[in-house]
Amino acid sequence: MTVKAQGPMAAQKIITLTTDFGLDDIYAGVMKGVMLSINPDCVIVDITHGVAPQDIESGALALETACRYFPAGAVHVAVVDPGVGGPRRPIVVATESGLFVGPDNGIFTFAITGPGFKAAYEPKEKKYFLTDVSPTFHGRDMFAPLAGHLSRGVPSESLGPVIADPVVLPQYLPVLQGDILEGRILHCDRFGNLITNIRQSMLQGFVRETRIAAACKGEAVTRLLPFYGLAQDEEVFCLMGSSGRLEVSLKNGSAAARLGAGRGDAVLLKKIDSSR
Amino acid sequence: MTVKAQGPMAAQKIITLTTDFGLDDIYAGVMKGVMLSINPDCVIVDITHGVAPQDIESGALALETACRYFPAGAVHVAVVDPGVGGPRRPIVVATESGLFVGPDNGIFTFAITGPGFKAAYEPKEKKYFLTDVSPTFHGRDMFAPLAGHLSRGVPSESLGPVIADPVVLPQYLPVLQGDILEGRILHCDRFGNLITNIRQSMLQGFVRETRIAAACKGEAVTRLLPFYGLAQDEEVFCLMGSSGRLEVSLKNGSAAARLGAGRGDAVLLKKIDSSR
Amino acid sequence: MTVKAQGPMAAQKIITLTTDFGLDDIYAGVMKGVMLSINPDCVIVDITHGVAPQDIESGALALETACRYFPAGAVHVAVVDPGVGGPRRPIVVATESGLFVGPDNGIFTFAITGPGFKAAYEPKEKKYFLTDVSPTFHGRDMFAPLAGHLSRGVPSESLGPVIADPVVLPQYLPVLQGDILEGRILHCDRFGNLITNIRQSMLQGFVRETRIAAACKGEAVTRLLPFYGLAQDEEVFCLMGSSGRLEVSLKNGSAAARLGAGRGDAVLLKKIDSSR
Repeated sequence: MTVKAQGPMAAQKIITLTTDFGLDDIYAGVMKGVMLSINPDCVIVDITHGVAPQDIESGALALETACRYFPAGAVHVAVVDPGVGGPRRPIVVATESGLFVGPDNGIFTFAITGPGFKAAYEPKEKKYFLTDVSPTFHGRDMFAPLAGHLSRGVPSESLGPVIADPVVLPQYLPVLQGDILEGRILHCDRFGNLITNIRQSMLQGFVRETRIAAACKGEAVTRLLPFYGLAQDEEVFCLMGSSGRLEVSLKNGSAAARLGAGRGDAVLLKKIDSSR
Repeated sequence: MTVKAQGPMAAQKIITLTTDFGLDDIYAGVMKGVMLSINPDCVIVDITHGVAPQDIESGALALETACRYFPAGAVHVAVVDPGVGGPRRPIVVATESGLFVGPDNGIFTFAITGPGFKAAYEPKEKKYFLTDVSPTFHGRDMFAPLAGHLSRGVPSESLGPVIADPVVLPQYLPVLQGDILEGRILHCDRFGNLITNIRQSMLQGFVRETRIAAACKGEAVTRLLPFYGLAQDEEVFCLMGSSGRLEVSLKNGSAAARLGAGRGDAVLLKKIDSSR
Repeated sequence: MTVKAQGPMAAQKIITLTTDFGLDDIYAGVMKGVMLSINPDCVIVDITHGVAPQDIESGALALETACRYFPAGAVHVAVVDPGVGGPRRPIVVATESGLFVGPDNGIFTFAITGPGFKAAYEPKEKKYFLTDVSPTFHGRDMFAPLAGHLSRGVPSESLGPVIADPVVLPQYLPVLQGDILEGRILHCDRFGNLITNIRQSMLQGFVRETRIAAACKGEAVTRLLPFYGLAQDEEVFCLMGSSGRLEVSLKNGSAAARLGAGRGDAVLLKKIDSSR
């Protein structure tokens, strides 16, 4: 962690939002109105509303990567919620770095399985919801008011009973077979960078320094570079991205478009014996 | 109304924005700079900047649906303004729930015709505008400074004379012919949900519970479900949406894409005689 | 300047953001988390995150046009940064109207060459960066923390040495050849308006009042109108846009789509001798 909080009171008023609502509709704005109605002093920050519709995994990746840069004590709301209205529970996850509010569908897997996990609760106290809870928009009727109340200091444990079995997504880790490490693409960003599930720590001792033999969609990617500017024009290359994950990139262009690659595609790394 | 304001002082500092400017240009950001220059303590919330260009009706629907979730006394700015620079007047509408600032082109129809309407004014006092008012960007030069001053407590009635005949859009209500109720689609959201002008109250006594016989673009829609999760895969169904309007939806998919339907298309409901 | 600041203390807490990150990724949100971690009282305003990827000139135009509407003393962060990680320097530009923080790649040309320029500095004091500075995301690791510290009152000159030779982009000014003024399109906005590099002052004395003879992509544009509403349906026309630049427009439609024109295309103006 490289960011220091400014004390619990300062931080607690921050509420972040991560959803698949997009920005062309009013859904995100409505949630903000609800939160400000409950806590006029809260500071609301959008992490992103551009998660692909109903893509819980992508929402989880976005929030996991972003939330560590917010002050400790912040309230993080995530709404990617295909099961809204059905039997899926709402959940509040308390961790050492902050609170997480949203559907209990795995979107907070990293917080629940992480080292700072404290407890998970199922909010049931209706006084912390809007009066009428619709079966289709819990972001507005349940999660936004909960976040507003939490940001005012309402304790998580007062919201409802402990959840002993919160939903946890399977962790898709790279697979080592022989001398091939097979990862996969988790996300393609606006620049066409392909962000993989291969973390820096997995790469240590696997390939040396800037030598790499990778392939994506059948195309060889032979260089691991420290930053974009070192690449040749038109060269597809690898680098260790700002999120600590291996990325496949193209200088001043889109690696995704060039390779025809996207989320879920494999990235293969081959061991290089540098003694030979 | 389910949201309670935290008192007039707390709420008055909130300014919301609903425009057709999109977010790729600087127009929305510039308006915020102007508002913060006049009232450094205002809290600005985007409802949406994704209204289709020049589509006054869609802007009105977005603001009508969203503004009720903001604290009483908030200042709501709307800029969908194809008539900018011409004879159309600027308007400030005072209601029991807040103030509305923008062009007098019908975008505030719901506020003017609603039960909380108090008065409408034509802002003419140039001291509440920027020094130079361009003929093409009243959002920046007129509406943003007005909102800044209103959020500081300048009374609406001090801005200019009363408007006795504010512009009101025609209300497109569903039409009942024989046993068919013909509504139309007002909006398609990011998920492909088709939101109609058929309100919950119109449905009461028309179709019973979850029985419905609807059609959209020639496709029969036979179930009214309480939430998305109850639908079959690939089933187009109806539900009562979070805005209190009937929606046509597809589970984990876009009803709009599946039906080829969009804004303006008809949705037909047929009376079901449950005694037979 | 038409906006008055509310005093240096009020303004200094405002931080604006202009980037090419888009809003579907988490990059802008992460920068906000870093800034709020350092200064919990800062007020962050998005100018736009929709600059075309790696398009430094477009970012410069957006910020130049927007920043004058913010209170004096505001901190303006711009990140369009294809050279990140390489030899390009970070820069802080101090001007009479505010501070500018970002890469030294020309994006602050208007601030450096403008009348209010005071000095430029190369931030080198690592205590004002995040602990680990990645080679690919200086927006997060360097510019956001710098902005947070500057908004708390850290003086620019304490960040590092003066830069005597900041990078300045070539100024593409219209060219007069005979009786033809050749400008070019700098930006196409959401409405399809084509914004040129021809400023109002250049037009004075060149064409008279509303008479103009222009051409774009081979199509004649014969009228300079004061506002959109005066145009005929389907008529492509010119007007003096809200940014003080000549624009080519189409009433209730996209001039860009109609003409097939975009950034970089020429707009030709012909002198009209009104004495004949």
